[in-house]
Amino acid sequence: MENAILASTSTLHGQNYLEYLLPEITTLFQDCSEIIFIPFARPGGISHQDYTEHVQKALGKLPFRVKGLHEFQDPVKALNECDGIFTGGGNTFLLVEKLYRLKVMPVLKKQIKIGKPYLGTSAGTNIAGLTMQTTNDMPIIYPPSFQTLGILPFNINAHYLDPDTNSTHKGETRETRIKEFHTLNTQPVVGLREGSWLELSAGEIVLKGTLSSRIFKVDKVPFELAPNCKLTDLN
Amino acid sequence: MENAILASTSTLHGQNYLEYLLPEITTLFQDCSEIIFIPFARPGGISHQDYTEHVQKALGKLPFRVKGLHEFQDPVKALNECDGIFTGGGNTFLLVEKLYRLKVMPVLKKQIKIGKPYLGTSAGTNIAGLTMQTTNDMPIIYPPSFQTLGILPFNINAHYLDPDTNSTHKGETRETRIKEFHTLNTQPVVGLREGSWLELSAGEIVLKGTLSSRIFKVDKVPFELAPNCKLTDLN
Repeated sequence: MENAILASTSTLHGQNYLEYLLPEITTLFQDCSEIIFIPFARPGGISHQDYTEHVQKALGKLPFRVKGLHEFQDPVKALNECDGIFTGGGNTFLLVEKLYRLKVMPVLKKQIKIGKPYLGTSAGTNIAGLTMQTTNDMPIIYPPSFQTLGILPFNINAHYLDPDTNSTHKGETRETRIKEFHTLNTQPVVGLREGSWLELSAGEIVLKGTLSSRIFKVDKVPFELAPNCKLTDLN
Repeated sequence: MENAILASTSTLHGQNYLEYLLPEITTLFQDCSEIIFIPFARPGGISHQDYTEHVQKALGKLPFRVKGLHEFQDPVKALNECDGIFTGGGNTFLLVEKLYRLKVMPVLKKQIKIGKPYLGTSAGTNIAGLTMQTTNDMPIIYPPSFQTLGILPFNINAHYLDPDTNSTHKGETRETRIKEFHTLNTQPVVGLREGSWLELSAGEIVLKGTLSSRIFKVDKVPFELAPNCKLTDLN
């Protein structure tokens, strides 16, 4: 049974990296002495090592060690044997391509399914969905598939943004993009605003944080889901 | 030698569809009695037929007919035999997947290369680049490749938006996304603002419209290129 926190963003405006999530991270990884960080999404092109050190610093006061998955000769063994896993944000295409290339996608899925504590932020949350097809990221690399972990029975749109009614920009809104997704795909999409996260525990998926989420279902008018509501049976 | 207009957007704020481009479109297609519209990017999920009728209406006063490529049994023959081609905006993944599926990508490239008048807006401009990897669109379908026409010796980022310095949103800026692209890819990227277009004629690529474009080269500080400057030798 899954034990996971899937957050829209790692960072809130005016706060430090992961600051608003520290209480949840402390609880999630309370039984861990060492967790593995998956740095492959490389936000802004940062190196695996620099990204891992950034996380080590942010979580430095918590009572567990953090190691980067890139440090291990055998990433499959490392994920099987570690106490907990955190996948950071950045570019979802880059993350997914690397997870397939290292052949760790099924391992990661299995470890989360059997209840190993998992934290995802942004791209690390996108990959928990059925596919990565509702990412906002640029396709900077061609992954062998858009299928992802399927821990959730729906897709995620992280950093969800409401249409800016004052904008004169003619690029498509997030809502229009998701509508286009639904002309070809049937799974629901959860528009997860910054500051929201999904908590997976005791067999349930619950929306946490103070904001509502916007839910998109094929051929339905989008609607708002309030904090602390369940999404377990959304699909 | 190419004879093309590649526009960032089809529509400017407060204007009708294609309105600001009508003088250029009139000149581009002046020797055409019939042009083919490629509706496959389907903005907002609109049907091929509805999208084509929208274009027919917008260009109704110009002295040529518009037919949708979806109306033809043999799309390769249709593109080879028509007088001019217009590819509209929408979702670039959807457009590219369909162009590959119909096996028209090489035909389209050849016809533009030999000088058949070509108009692209948004997704229809993206595909003129070396790859579609600097699109802003959602990956709603998995195309067989990200490679595109390579009419331009660089990539396009259409609807280019400057970072909003007042924003509290933590999603990545366009500039950060393009920086991530350049950690893996070497071709320059032209950030084409709404209202700008590239004019390809007499063997030159010239920036038109009243705005500058933002140019991104690997390992260089981005810079602005003024209207009426050439981009022919950018790469």
